[in-house]
Amino acid sequence: MNKPLKARYLIETSFELEKAAAILAGEQSSGTFVKIPGETDELRERSGAEILSIEPLGTVNSPSLPGARQIPDTPIQQAVVEVCWPLANMGTNLPNLCATVAGNLFELSPFSGIKLMDLEIPSAFADRYPGPSFGIEGTRSLTGVYDRPIIGTIIKPSVGLTPEQTADRVKTLIEAGLDFIKDDELQGDSPHSPFKERVELVMQVINQHADRTGIKPMFAFNLSGDLDDMLRRHDYLLENGGTCIMVNLNWVGISAAVRVADHSQLPIHGHRNGWGIFDRSPILGIGFSAYQKIWRVAGIDHIHTNGIRNKFCESDESVISSIKSCLEPLWGGYPIMPVLSSGQWAGQAKDTYDQIGSVDLMYLCGGGIVAHPSGIAAGVRSIQQAWDAAMNGIPLTDYAGKHQELKEALDFYG
Amino acid sequence: MNKPLKARYLIETSFELEKAAAILAGEQSSGTFVKIPGETDELRERSGAEILSIEPLGTVNSPSLPGARQIPDTPIQQAVVEVCWPLANMGTNLPNLCATVAGNLFELSPFSGIKLMDLEIPSAFADRYPGPSFGIEGTRSLTGVYDRPIIGTIIKPSVGLTPEQTADRVKTLIEAGLDFIKDDELQGDSPHSPFKERVELVMQVINQHADRTGIKPMFAFNLSGDLDDMLRRHDYLLENGGTCIMVNLNWVGISAAVRVADHSQLPIHGHRNGWGIFDRSPILGIGFSAYQKIWRVAGIDHIHTNGIRNKFCESDESVISSIKSCLEPLWGGYPIMPVLSSGQWAGQAKDTYDQIGSVDLMYLCGGGIVAHPSGIAAGVRSIQQAWDAAMNGIPLTDYAGKHQELKEALDFYG
Repeated sequence: MNKPLKARYLIETSFELEKAAAILAGEQSSGTFVKIPGETDELRERSGAEILSIEPLGTVNSPSLPGARQIPDTPIQQAVVEVCWPLANMGTNLPNLCATVAGNLFELSPFSGIKLMDLEIPSAFADRYPGPSFGIEGTRSLTGVYDRPIIGTIIKPSVGLTPEQTADRVKTLIEAGLDFIKDDELQGDSPHSPFKERVELVMQVINQHADRTGIKPMFAFNLSGDLDDMLRRHDYLLENGGTCIMVNLNWVGISAAVRVADHSQLPIHGHRNGWGIFDRSPILGIGFSAYQKIWRVAGIDHIHTNGIRNKFCESDESVISSIKSCLEPLWGGYPIMPVLSSGQWAGQAKDTYDQIGSVDLMYLCGGGIVAHPSGIAAGVRSIQQAWDAAMNGIPLTDYAGKHQELKEALDFYG
Repeated sequence: MNKPLKARYLIETSFELEKAAAILAGEQSSGTFVKIPGETDELRERSGAEILSIEPLGTVNSPSLPGARQIPDTPIQQAVVEVCWPLANMGTNLPNLCATVAGNLFELSPFSGIKLMDLEIPSAFADRYPGPSFGIEGTRSLTGVYDRPIIGTIIKPSVGLTPEQTADRVKTLIEAGLDFIKDDELQGDSPHSPFKERVELVMQVINQHADRTGIKPMFAFNLSGDLDDMLRRHDYLLENGGTCIMVNLNWVGISAAVRVADHSQLPIHGHRNGWGIFDRSPILGIGFSAYQKIWRVAGIDHIHTNGIRNKFCESDESVISSIKSCLEPLWGGYPIMPVLSSGQWAGQAKDTYDQIGSVDLMYLCGGGIVAHPSGIAAGVRSIQQAWDAAMNGIPLTDYAGKHQELKEALDFYG
């Protein structure tokens, strides 16, 4: 039935690589630690996972993680292993796909390191999961922004502002020309900023701006919470003219996110906070390429990737690889929009563009816009100018010669 | 409003500990990397997180995780830091609680290691989340097993058996005296074992057994999947006389698990597969004590902990600490039943009991029961005898003198 599910792992073990891979494949399919009655050759043939390839990477001096069984006097090797499973093992069921490729295997005793690096999900999943409803095109259509990144910011302080203060802030930001604004991920539905009141006051500001100018900036409201609350909040937001919902992916979880996506008439801004748990260790967890595929199958329209030269621990190489993985079509579609943020200002535009060759992204700046010496509107313009320069292959410093806001940004932040 | 949310972290940093802790607290509450307009003293006072304590643990020679900013010529320290937040920051919203204590902080640049070790959740959360509906008492009442562990096993092979084969296996197992059986976590609703058909055939066997003997063993059916499917599967199982549902916690996710718990009239067997991502690294992720609190607030009745001398990488010390954390009341209640498994047989009973002093647990054995030299029923009896011995403070070898099945187990597995 259909094409198999494939997963690529980075492993670390003192076992023979073939043996370690066989234990992984066995544990995650028909087998267990030992061959047991009922695991017939026929059943194993039908349901066993298969090892497709093993690529040794070299040795390490000491185990990266504690607890593994070490074969005495044997080097510890790292390797890339590809495993595949018959689709019939899990059916087209996203949580069970995850249990298969990312279940009990992280504690298997031969491994002093194991990380799911990438996934190939069978296209049969498309029958059940229609994927992002809006993606890049839908988001452009709602914001009216084409042929350049969608430029955005985040409401700060993260928490503590009242709905009135938030709406005031939004007014300032959209009058300065921002395309997109989002709640901080910590801001949900709290006593000091109840969701409904925040929506009502913020959307009043945005709707009035849209009536006046014909431009409707997008605000991603964080509706993360219990499922029925999320659905109600979506409906309330829709009634009030809202154009985007935000979900804290890791804490709402896959099944509820799928339910929200099934229900939603708005794009879903996927916030990956907590992602460091999955991907910060080089040798444990789930790499972003696999991670984003799970979420785009779930129906998420935007996903955070960090930007280059960010203020977190993530390297530029990792950031660029994440952005590229989002821009890679899945089954010829399922477009998900990467969201670049953290320490971003005009200065990273060209280097980012040179490496990804696309403007299909959101570019979120905090201080990189609002701290611009000539004000927020100048900050927004400096970002637009920087991306103009990038797209036209012009060094930022050259372009700054005729573009005052960019020049000021380079002088101030550079 | 109410008591604050508290979290305890293990951190590793070359920054001054006070400074690193302040960055963590700021980022996860009112602040960002730099002080920004709008973050007034009054707002900070109302919404800022507070550092309660910092306990230095010593230094390490090299950073445990890559990417952190290192202060030149400065030792890298580990420390335990306690932080608290006003409840008003997140309201009584479990996903937003997680975004607060386990959000973007794992990538913060001062840290070459950061792990959420424990949580103190304000009891105000009890108003929204009633917690486990069945817990230990409800599970005992449904199985009729008192004053000893509930003894169980897992259907293996993990995947590949048909519903008929599964039902046959169940018949053998319950006739041998098992109290509890569960689907493997890989077995959901797949083409070779559709959920409804599996329920129908397995429950026929169990219901007939109950009619005949008055004893109804519990079978935990894995209904993990899309939300509406899970609710339908629950209802179908209930109609067919089922007494337990199983959820793959990490892949179904919090919001859907809460929705299932709100709906469920059956205890929820929480499978933590994928937990190694969170807790295998000593210096990254979420420790089990914090993890199990989140899930019992979500309403899960049973949760996996591994057993001692297991076949995974988890140490006995970690296992015992996990079991104890489950048996510790939360807000005076919220009882969640620890599920011990992996390589368990009669031999671990006394050492386990001596360390935890409780029989309020599930004790799952695979080969430790089915491979018993005198058959499965003897295997079950050997476990019961071992726990009798443990509860009465009698060494297993002494007790085996008058208990044949235990003696055979000690000879065979010992």
